[in-house]
Amino acid sequence: MPATDPPPDDRRTLRVLGDAVTTVDQTRLPFERVDLVLADPAACAEAIASMRVRGAPLIGAIAGFGLAFALRERADDAGLAAALERLAATRPTAVNLRWALARVAAAAAPVAPAGRAAAAWREAVAIADEDVAINAAIGRHGAAMLARRVADRAAAGRPVTAAAPLQVLTHCNAGRLATVAHGTALAPVYALHARGVPVHVWVDETRPRNQGARLTAWELHDAGVRCTVVADNAAGLLMRSRRVDAVLVGCDRVAANGDVANKVGTVLKALAARDAGIPFWVACPTPTIDAAAPDGDAIPIEMRPPREVTHAVGRADDGRLVEVRLVPDGVSAENPAFDLTPARLIDALLTEHGAFDADARGVAAALRG
Amino acid sequence: MPATDPPPDDRRTLRVLGDAVTTVDQTRLPFERVDLVLADPAACAEAIASMRVRGAPLIGAIAGFGLAFALRERADDAGLAAALERLAATRPTAVNLRWALARVAAAAAPVAPAGRAAAAWREAVAIADEDVAINAAIGRHGAAMLARRVADRAAAGRPVTAAAPLQVLTHCNAGRLATVAHGTALAPVYALHARGVPVHVWVDETRPRNQGARLTAWELHDAGVRCTVVADNAAGLLMRSRRVDAVLVGCDRVAANGDVANKVGTVLKALAARDAGIPFWVACPTPTIDAAAPDGDAIPIEMRPPREVTHAVGRADDGRLVEVRLVPDGVSAENPAFDLTPARLIDALLTEHGAFDADARGVAAALRG
Repeated sequence: MPATDPPPDDRRTLRVLGDAVTTVDQTRLPFERVDLVLADPAACAEAIASMRVRGAPLIGAIAGFGLAFALRERADDAGLAAALERLAATRPTAVNLRWALARVAAAAAPVAPAGRAAAAWREAVAIADEDVAINAAIGRHGAAMLARRVADRAAAGRPVTAAAPLQVLTHCNAGRLATVAHGTALAPVYALHARGVPVHVWVDETRPRNQGARLTAWELHDAGVRCTVVADNAAGLLMRSRRVDAVLVGCDRVAANGDVANKVGTVLKALAARDAGIPFWVACPTPTIDAAAPDGDAIPIEMRPPREVTHAVGRADDGRLVEVRLVPDGVSAENPAFDLTPARLIDALLTEHGAFDADARGVAAALRG
Repeated sequence: MPATDPPPDDRRTLRVLGDAVTTVDQTRLPFERVDLVLADPAACAEAIASMRVRGAPLIGAIAGFGLAFALRERADDAGLAAALERLAATRPTAVNLRWALARVAAAAAPVAPAGRAAAAWREAVAIADEDVAINAAIGRHGAAMLARRVADRAAAGRPVTAAAPLQVLTHCNAGRLATVAHGTALAPVYALHARGVPVHVWVDETRPRNQGARLTAWELHDAGVRCTVVADNAAGLLMRSRRVDAVLVGCDRVAANGDVANKVGTVLKALAARDAGIPFWVACPTPTIDAAAPDGDAIPIEMRPPREVTHAVGRADDGRLVEVRLVPDGVSAENPAFDLTPARLIDALLTEHGAFDADARGVAAALRG
């Protein structure tokens, strides 16, 4: 089996384990590896809301299993409706959550109550398996796009070598940990790395929750891909200095016109990339497209607790995880978790069906497949 | 005495204390207030290099006193040259440092060695006093510009009220703590606040060193100005949502064409402001202009230790200051301390002589005064 295509369960962030599923608690990474076993809907809802699991594709998959677990407990119509409502309320911005819940509900609802849990489980497993296939396809298409940047570098007299690798900048975590496997924005990086092309990733630390510094750096380092963490503020200077060949990010919801909701800070990188003439690509599995949202203004932006900004969690010298306060007493913070990148700043939506323009026509074509 | 014009020594960040100067250790704020007494050149150099004191105007003033202290120890030409070299090497980007050293040296050099220390001291005191006057003037000019934004809000049917204050976004700390008194970018905010105009400041936390979260939030809160800390990533969403009326930042060096070197991340806010049609103003005392730098590419960008990115310092629950690691073991970081904002993104350079266009003509006019 080639290195590009590892045994699925080996690098899966979400695995089926008997009648339960298992994943890793992402609030403890990279300092501690604590596996979670999820076997009931409350545990799934808590894991999503507390961001023990995060990433639009992964929370979609876990919400699907959560609904299956709920139907084991109570499979009548009222139970189905209550579980749907509870799981949908865990995070407001990512649309995969609602998409997966609707799909699992649609598989279960026509079946007699006694068979609903099993039907839901099969659909949840299918969603998880499809996520793996979608991301593998995004990896192939994106690797071809990155390979063209390698050719551009050679044509410009700055060939990609081990000493001068292809330079990708990413924001937040749209890697393996955000998905069932492979990642979305990082899937092309892994695919290129597997082919032996030297690639280096600038990892935005991604305050306030530091998903870049904690999760993206961890999974890239774990996979042997070279990476360097930078403050979110550094992107402008890096791009102006021509030290970035492409920007690749994920997304939490894409509107019908190509506007993208993604981790707060994304639009600042898109503006800097456009200003510097560097391609800005959004890795976008089609389940992340919300055709019902005409544009970005229709996408709700989750506000998270101020404490994520006023404090930071890290490992102290003695090895303990410590939360430290960063701001003066009496001062508060505001904490929008996402922002909106207008379609006009996006050079391509990279889906499992290939790359599309970020406009109404491109989005419609991506949805047709 | 009006509230806008407090007794100078009361709110000065740098004060003369007999034959020494005293200031506050900014690496300990906001959690601990530790005063520093500086009385020799080594202490001044250490305080600047370690960022116990920071902010272009303040480090200029302290470098001036450092040179006076050095001449007390050794006043011959070789001693003067050695002290100049040592103090100039402490920080590479801010030009005020070199400007103040050159000015103090020019005052001392023509004097016989026995009188040099006294001549240097007088010049250092003059530089500090002039900084206070410069920043007070920036405050007056900038308050008039902000008052026009208040009028714009009223004309747009969104009047400034206590419940809907004027909204200013700032990056890093260009406040009292960055200067001898008043601040540069915050001087207009303080002036407006003193007039009773409701104003609220969005404070970028300003990773990696968190000067916004620690210092700007502290001094605004201390002065009774409403403020809210946000992650550096939040600026795009805030501006898109029309929750910012003006962006005001300081600068560490301004080139002859109007390009600005300031704290890393500044250009991302400038891009977002331009995209949203929000004015982006750089508070720029004329000593921060480097007429010898034709454009931003001529300004050296200081690279600081990766540890500032890989770690964060804050106050733990037990009150201790703790440094915590944020990134996985084995992963490093890159830490440019400044970035370059091209003149085309700057709506005004706000100097002690008023506002000027950010172009060669405007910079020349500002230098003429």
